[in-house]
Amino acid sequence: MVNSMGGRRRACEIGITIGSLEAGRLNAITDVEGVGVGHSTIIRGEGPLKIGEGPVRTGVTAIVPHQGNPYDEKVVAAVDVFNAYGKSVGLLQIAHMGTIETPILLTDTLNTWIVADCLVSYMYEIYGVNAPSINPVVGETNGSFLNDSIGRHVRRNHVFEALDMARSPEGMGVVPEGNVGGGTPMSAFGFKGGIGTASRKTDYFTLGILVQLNCGRMEDLRVDGVPVGKELIGTHTQGSDARGSVIIIMATDLELTSRQLWKVLRRTFLGIARLGHYGNVGSGDYAIGFTTSRRSLQEAFRIPRVEKGRFLREEGYLDLVFRAAVEATEEAALNALFMAETMVGRDFNKREGIPIDRVLEILKKYGRL
Amino acid sequence: MVNSMGGRRRACEIGITIGSLEAGRLNAITDVEGVGVGHSTIIRGEGPLKIGEGPVRTGVTAIVPHQGNPYDEKVVAAVDVFNAYGKSVGLLQIAHMGTIETPILLTDTLNTWIVADCLVSYMYEIYGVNAPSINPVVGETNGSFLNDSIGRHVRRNHVFEALDMARSPEGMGVVPEGNVGGGTPMSAFGFKGGIGTASRKTDYFTLGILVQLNCGRMEDLRVDGVPVGKELIGTHTQGSDARGSVIIIMATDLELTSRQLWKVLRRTFLGIARLGHYGNVGSGDYAIGFTTSRRSLQEAFRIPRVEKGRFLREEGYLDLVFRAAVEATEEAALNALFMAETMVGRDFNKREGIPIDRVLEILKKYGRL
Amino acid sequence: MVNSMGGRRRACEIGITIGSLEAGRLNAITDVEGVGVGHSTIIRGEGPLKIGEGPVRTGVTAIVPHQGNPYDEKVVAAVDVFNAYGKSVGLLQIAHMGTIETPILLTDTLNTWIVADCLVSYMYEIYGVNAPSINPVVGETNGSFLNDSIGRHVRRNHVFEALDMARSPEGMGVVPEGNVGGGTPMSAFGFKGGIGTASRKTDYFTLGILVQLNCGRMEDLRVDGVPVGKELIGTHTQGSDARGSVIIIMATDLELTSRQLWKVLRRTFLGIARLGHYGNVGSGDYAIGFTTSRRSLQEAFRIPRVEKGRFLREEGYLDLVFRAAVEATEEAALNALFMAETMVGRDFNKREGIPIDRVLEILKKYGRL
Amino acid sequence: MVNSMGGRRRACEIGITIGSLEAGRLNAITDVEGVGVGHSTIIRGEGPLKIGEGPVRTGVTAIVPHQGNPYDEKVVAAVDVFNAYGKSVGLLQIAHMGTIETPILLTDTLNTWIVADCLVSYMYEIYGVNAPSINPVVGETNGSFLNDSIGRHVRRNHVFEALDMARSPEGMGVVPEGNVGGGTPMSAFGFKGGIGTASRKTDYFTLGILVQLNCGRMEDLRVDGVPVGKELIGTHTQGSDARGSVIIIMATDLELTSRQLWKVLRRTFLGIARLGHYGNVGSGDYAIGFTTSRRSLQEAFRIPRVEKGRFLREEGYLDLVFRAAVEATEEAALNALFMAETMVGRDFNKREGIPIDRVLEILKKYGRL
Repeated sequence: MVNSMGGRRRACEIGITIGSLEAGRLNAITDVEGVGVGHSTIIRGEGPLKIGEGPVRTGVTAIVPHQGNPYDEKVVAAVDVFNAYGKSVGLLQIAHMGTIETPILLTDTLNTWIVADCLVSYMYEIYGVNAPSINPVVGETNGSFLNDSIGRHVRRNHVFEALDMARSPEGMGVVPEGNVGGGTPMSAFGFKGGIGTASRKTDYFTLGILVQLNCGRMEDLRVDGVPVGKELIGTHTQGSDARGSVIIIMATDLELTSRQLWKVLRRTFLGIARLGHYGNVGSGDYAIGFTTSRRSLQEAFRIPRVEKGRFLREEGYLDLVFRAAVEATEEAALNALFMAETMVGRDFNKREGIPIDRVLEILKKYGRL
Repeated sequence: MVNSMGGRRRACEIGITIGSLEAGRLNAITDVEGVGVGHSTIIRGEGPLKIGEGPVRTGVTAIVPHQGNPYDEKVVAAVDVFNAYGKSVGLLQIAHMGTIETPILLTDTLNTWIVADCLVSYMYEIYGVNAPSINPVVGETNGSFLNDSIGRHVRRNHVFEALDMARSPEGMGVVPEGNVGGGTPMSAFGFKGGIGTASRKTDYFTLGILVQLNCGRMEDLRVDGVPVGKELIGTHTQGSDARGSVIIIMATDLELTSRQLWKVLRRTFLGIARLGHYGNVGSGDYAIGFTTSRRSLQEAFRIPRVEKGRFLREEGYLDLVFRAAVEATEEAALNALFMAETMVGRDFNKREGIPIDRVLEILKKYGRL
Repeated sequence: MVNSMGGRRRACEIGITIGSLEAGRLNAITDVEGVGVGHSTIIRGEGPLKIGEGPVRTGVTAIVPHQGNPYDEKVVAAVDVFNAYGKSVGLLQIAHMGTIETPILLTDTLNTWIVADCLVSYMYEIYGVNAPSINPVVGETNGSFLNDSIGRHVRRNHVFEALDMARSPEGMGVVPEGNVGGGTPMSAFGFKGGIGTASRKTDYFTLGILVQLNCGRMEDLRVDGVPVGKELIGTHTQGSDARGSVIIIMATDLELTSRQLWKVLRRTFLGIARLGHYGNVGSGDYAIGFTTSRRSLQEAFRIPRVEKGRFLREEGYLDLVFRAAVEATEEAALNALFMAETMVGRDFNKREGIPIDRVLEILKKYGRL
Repeated sequence: MVNSMGGRRRACEIGITIGSLEAGRLNAITDVEGVGVGHSTIIRGEGPLKIGEGPVRTGVTAIVPHQGNPYDEKVVAAVDVFNAYGKSVGLLQIAHMGTIETPILLTDTLNTWIVADCLVSYMYEIYGVNAPSINPVVGETNGSFLNDSIGRHVRRNHVFEALDMARSPEGMGVVPEGNVGGGTPMSAFGFKGGIGTASRKTDYFTLGILVQLNCGRMEDLRVDGVPVGKELIGTHTQGSDARGSVIIIMATDLELTSRQLWKVLRRTFLGIARLGHYGNVGSGDYAIGFTTSRRSLQEAFRIPRVEKGRFLREEGYLDLVFRAAVEATEEAALNALFMAETMVGRDFNKREGIPIDRVLEILKKYGRL
């Protein structure tokens, strides 16, 4: 799937093949039927930081599990928390109830609660919910290296714009990556990070991943196992000590229980580990997953009717789902890195896009491509 | 400790003795030195519900762990989640990092995120924090039976007012209970609920509890083991099927690790169970605890210096802390019930204060008092 | 259901009614169709403790989820851990896989691993399993006040005997309680404890509980809310400082997911709390539950077919299951206490059966019966 | 550190450098002062499987946290569970109590409970414990491809032998790796697996890892990022579909709380992920860690005295501990693979040692070495 912008190219476009399973048509979370993604990107101002004025480099990314009303048609969901130095909201209710009842929004750390409140407004005003209890779900990573974070610049119109887009035909298509939406100010492995997505499609199910990538140190970066970071570190500077987090959103059409979804989510962080990340103290690494339940296990795997009291052994199908989740997460994270362009933010802080040509040279040097 | 208002009386004032340990001077969470509590109560309008206009029955309660800057002087903390149909924010970071870095605020469900955002503003503007990451902690229960919840009427000035009060000499004294602050619109056991507090003081430590009580069905209510609810149910109506939640805040001056605090918190819900509550599906029952660490274990229990590699057996002291936590929680919940006056809210919905005279009669009938 | 032995009587036989739901025919875990219980009780020797010789006061209790092969027909299961100073084996696999594949055995602490190994032998030799991996499930509490625990006297024949009985018509009937099987040497609330069971039956489902009760201090004991322990403590001695644990086994015929079973299990300990127990440091309090899945939610609650993507709100049925679980646990624990006779064990240590006539007098004094 | 046997060589001996931190003197878990390791290896018989007779390929590995009595001098400990299709015993008590009170033993799945019972005997008979409650800790992976697992051939003398060795000067030195102790029959990535160890030593602390490696598929294997498995899969056969597990034991001399140890343990599995493993359904992946607490944080990091109520930010030191844990785990797993020789077991099942010369060729082809 071709999705390049401004000279940036996705991992698959430059010849990198992650794992052994095939990607879906768009190689994006939107390959899971019904899932939509929308971004609202806010880039405004330059120069020295004036808290409350800017420069602003932030935004919101919205993911809808289906095109209906998510409160009325809740989807089975789960969360896994790798490290919780993070402010994401709504996760405990997902874990206990096993469902998600709103779209998922991603943003910059200090906008989290404004965004949650605006999502609640959207549920009442646009979706027409009238229940007195709603559990908004918002994930965040910290973009304060480039953004006037403390100024909290996301407003109701940005949240509504991202949600409207996710609920449109456009939102169900190609997903913009890199410096967009919640990913706008993010950094990863000493380079510019942001939003990335990928998918895996088997005979049995489709699984898609979207990440907001904001973690890793340059020296640790591996691209498909090649120590790219060590090669680049001499010639590029990190700008600052890169700490940070990753939020992983997973969608599948395979009907799984919340316990099973949780087990799949636990594997997604292994995809991040394959890029060389260690999971630092100051990171808020959360995975949130849901199923649209369009394919029952029995239909998908053509299993003869399971008798009461007889169990389908999970080995028969979950191992393949695990593999898809790890591969798609690794590739989505690479896409976040490869699609993000150089950005200058507050106080002239600069984060370079990873130099794709240099990466290609290094991959060749190490016998790839 | 006398704290009665408007004919309402605390459990200890009407002769009920819960458990075997002694209460602190105020029988309140503020018996833990340095802890402050503030309320902002919003009561406005009458009659039919007009979303966004009212009637308003809501507010904010603030608890500060000490009178210093909680971000700079973080306290060791923990959380326990009994049932997570709830929106409380900031809990996962407490669980993983083992500290709390802001005051704790309590409010009505749909104000949660506005309140969190205003707490962040307070941290920057009043406490003067300048870090780009803050983890606000907000607990909530659902007051929509009496309040225009969807209207979300809490504003910045209410949050600041509650916090200012918690940081004043007044905030470190007697704690107003019942229909105040976050507890304003709450219901419990078919009667009016709200804020309640109690404490236990031993030779070794002080432990205080504050609850925002919004759970339980009338028929299940037990007061010190006496089936008060069954006796009252014929003569009182519940107003509506009472579902709901409880938030439990615990403070102690005993130096405990976050693992130990977590174990103490797990017991607090047993205090609620002793009132007859079963923990329903639609409840968000969370306990958040911290220690001001003013008394080390060795000082408190006069233990000779522990050698390296030698462990203090927890049985030696934690069992007593468990007991204090259960007793104080049971009594704090009773205080919430006994101190809350009858309230009429939106759409003329009415929740009666539990009839204290009738409770006394029933207790006598069952051989108490 | 009449089940009294040697002057002992069950809670329902002496007029105590716990909660508001009806019991099943036997008021036992065996009211859940297919569930069987077997005991092997070992009582041998008197006088001073000689480790390895006796006196022996121990045994094994077996619970089978159905009368088929539990490895081939695994049942959906869950666990909840209240406090894990305990050695129970097999629990983590249940939590992650959501199934149980062997009978559940209960015994005295230090026999745990011998019993687990013998259960594995039974799976291979009697059930004819040939897989190279089996997850035996064994719960334990500590009977060392009366038993030569360190001597570890349970043998293969005892394990096989308990299992054979659980798989017989006898095992599916009335469940012996008190000083039997794994409960033989146990203590509770300063009196003799042991095995107890109870059930609740609604139009929608049957739920049964079996406990091995070994926890609580006399002064804390409440019987249906009445402070029986405080009244008895002057006239009875505890024999020793009673610490300890409780293992709770729950069975239901209602088809629930493992997440839902887990939520029900979390409530069971509230039933123990209602007896006045605080959950001490040195306790291993575990609940293990399974469903025989004989009644689907839709059948049981006569719900019209649930459309894909539409969820059954759990409030519609789980609250009733929670209530059944709490009531049955409280009553099962009382039965353990009321059915256990006075026992003298190693070193002439003596634990009295709770004096039922005195309990009745106290209940009358407090306006009950 | 040279430790090669029978033509096998450790990762560091063939020029592979994992990560950026230095290894300790022995590059083994025994670099943590006081930690001892002992093995008892049982290899007996050839040919067709006769359950109960053989062929036997099993054993026990013992790790002692220090050379004193581990029950009297408990060490602070933690566990992390990645996937719990596994039978390991003793983990829940570690998680709740935050301590470990026995040595840790590793063995083949079905010997788990016999080994636990023999460990209890050792505690009473050799360590002289007389408490009636002991929490033995035993980890396991499944060696049934080569071993008569159902026959359960480990006996008391094997357990005692491994423990005696771990408590000797020899046990505190070079750690035998590969086909030894609990690792004897294990497989990994389609080749022979078993026991491996490695360490990292910084100015501030020493951290050691020991793994019992029994997981992974050949096609997924990566050695320092190089896709060695894909290159080998044409020329080598897996023998059977390789499923399985890994047990990770971690020791450090840095004084950490159990919460902090748990956070370090969560990272260890990332080291396994870097070898290409996805974490399959049928795996029991557990990490158990402890600290000997020989270096306090303040001493180690030369931090001026921390004032009461002031916290040491974990970023200041834990990130380095995380890195050490990931690197040491990745290298320990490689050592298990590289040190394990070809073994023929029951039914002539054969598992080849990974061909080191071929691995070297592949590493060169991909620009390494």
